[in-house]
Amino acid sequence: MPTTGKQLFTTLSADGKLTVEVAESQFPDPTGNQVLVKMEAAPINPSDLALLLGQADVENGEYSAGKLVATMPEPFHSAMKGRHDQRLPVGNEGAGTVVAAGDSEMAQALMGQRVACVPGHAYSQYAIADAAMCLPLGEVSSEDGASAFVNPMTALGFVENAKMDGQKAIIHAAAASNLGQMLVKICQEDGIELVNIVRKAEQEQILRDLGAKWVVNSSAPDFMAKLMEAIDATDAYYGFDPIGGGTTVDSCFKAMERVAVGKMKDYNRYGSNQPKRMFIYGRLDTGPTILTPSYGFGWTLSGWLLTPFLAQAGMETMQRMRSRVREGLTSTFASHYKKKVTLEQMLEKDAACDYRLMKTGEKYLVTPWG
Amino acid sequence: MPTTGKQLFTTLSADGKLTVEVAESQFPDPTGNQVLVKMEAAPINPSDLALLLGQADVENGEYSAGKLVATMPEPFHSAMKGRHDQRLPVGNEGAGTVVAAGDSEMAQALMGQRVACVPGHAYSQYAIADAAMCLPLGEVSSEDGASAFVNPMTALGFVENAKMDGQKAIIHAAAASNLGQMLVKICQEDGIELVNIVRKAEQEQILRDLGAKWVVNSSAPDFMAKLMEAIDATDAYYGFDPIGGGTTVDSCFKAMERVAVGKMKDYNRYGSNQPKRMFIYGRLDTGPTILTPSYGFGWTLSGWLLTPFLAQAGMETMQRMRSRVREGLTSTFASHYKKKVTLEQMLEKDAACDYRLMKTGEKYLVTPWG
Repeated sequence: MPTTGKQLFTTLSADGKLTVEVAESQFPDPTGNQVLVKMEAAPINPSDLALLLGQADVENGEYSAGKLVATMPEPFHSAMKGRHDQRLPVGNEGAGTVVAAGDSEMAQALMGQRVACVPGHAYSQYAIADAAMCLPLGEVSSEDGASAFVNPMTALGFVENAKMDGQKAIIHAAAASNLGQMLVKICQEDGIELVNIVRKAEQEQILRDLGAKWVVNSSAPDFMAKLMEAIDATDAYYGFDPIGGGTTVDSCFKAMERVAVGKMKDYNRYGSNQPKRMFIYGRLDTGPTILTPSYGFGWTLSGWLLTPFLAQAGMETMQRMRSRVREGLTSTFASHYKKKVTLEQMLEKDAACDYRLMKTGEKYLVTPWG
Repeated sequence: MPTTGKQLFTTLSADGKLTVEVAESQFPDPTGNQVLVKMEAAPINPSDLALLLGQADVENGEYSAGKLVATMPEPFHSAMKGRHDQRLPVGNEGAGTVVAAGDSEMAQALMGQRVACVPGHAYSQYAIADAAMCLPLGEVSSEDGASAFVNPMTALGFVENAKMDGQKAIIHAAAASNLGQMLVKICQEDGIELVNIVRKAEQEQILRDLGAKWVVNSSAPDFMAKLMEAIDATDAYYGFDPIGGGTTVDSCFKAMERVAVGKMKDYNRYGSNQPKRMFIYGRLDTGPTILTPSYGFGWTLSGWLLTPFLAQAGMETMQRMRSRVREGLTSTFASHYKKKVTLEQMLEKDAACDYRLMKTGEKYLVTPWG
């Protein structure tokens, strides 16, 4: 018998209006390896916001109970042609209690348990999830387990990827984020040097309080000098940037190259032989990425996403990563939230205008039962 | 006994003046695996120009016999700190006759032969070259053999690299260049699909006359549509760009992604799973590279240089590539020149202002003996 509950949907109409609304949904009985989870908490991550609101003009939106309508400006409206007029559920991850399970042994074993899950429609009172991706939380609360996938696995993924590529040091931008704080702890545990780039003095302090050794402030006048000093000391020619737009990657490549050139004896018109590698894993800045021709040809920049990385890393690595996350949910992988909101409160103007800014350390948690 | 001859040097002084001049040099007797080559012809490639003139203001330079002095503007002057006040020889490659040889068997075997060589100081009446890198030209003239290394090996390198990466199609920008024309022929010989991007109708015609199937004009209003059509037909998700600055790479990634998304059934906020790969191998445009956030995270952009590629490909591959170049010097790998100049004529205003534009199909050849 289907279960009824409230769920959030986002629709971008072909005429340029974005509608986000709470509606009643029917959740079918889970089959096979599926479980039905009564959702208790779900974070609003940057990776959710692209689908939830995108670049919609929420400042000038129309707000009513459980509903938000806003204009989607160009070029964003046209760029998302693929989703026009589709009513899409939102919310990558969350946590709750398994209230029904499919026939499979794996699904049945989770019955009644509190789990973290990755349903893709976590902003909902109920969600159908893949049992293979569920992480039993034991004594850990749903709030503490709500962010058990995206940030922990991404932070661990960076370190795994660096190790695969023979690196012993990493640069990380926007480093005071929840994810960045996890990365500080992981790198300490694994003996990986970490160069943290932040924008504000108070963010510097957050990371220093966690024991971070290398923290550089991109707003400081001596930013490049400090970044070069950190790269020189750590050999960090490998980094991850969630900002995407602007010159963060460019600054990293420049600093890497200047350090490498400083170690060369002779001038080489092509620059150093030091390979330089950066990854963009988010778009906190949706402006274009600017790469200046100032670091030769020995560099590579890629987009980075968790799912293809996990596919490439293989099941064994992924299971090892998941076990580590479960062990550290209230320590290494603990998340912090600025505010809790219900599904309806998500669609109030003050909230929407605030969480869409994705400010460091100001993450929202959705609690769909209030 | 040292040999005396005229040679060209470029010096960027710490106070921002670039001086390029012809001077008498002493060339020591070759030892070991070295040969002394009486240079007869050397091309001015884009890769030479960065060192020779860089961004110096040659339009307003001071010209005298065998000498050019011009101001190097910022930020280029500071960016080349590594070369300040160093008197540097120029000219990657050229051809001439071996007039003296070191003791090694390989060097001795080249005595009296006409060879193509890669001395790094080819704008000179004599050059000391590594015998292992010399290509005996047999009946081929020095003019026909002068460009036997940089362009042919780079064009072949693209195809080798594509094959290593499992690709059967390539995109190439600024495709009507000498190098681009070679690439058309190589791809025809090897059964690799090639999507050629040019900027002018007459360049389109040059490539079509060579039998190129896919030629798209970036100045045409239907550029993106034509590029997508070509990618759709060839599966070219892999390309090489010598322009560097601007939006060429961005357009390629965009077109690749739109083709890939068009083949997807469901909307995915992260874009397609199709890996997209581009390489920048030149800087015809020294402005910044602009990457817009419009093709998800499944892309990789790298700098590409011949020397590290050859080191990675290994000696066997390199020898195979060289043999192929020697066989095709007057066919597949033939180069064309707009004008011949002596060392002194290189430093006349009209010439310097012309070749530094690096216009497609307008390459200069230096003949140091007149």
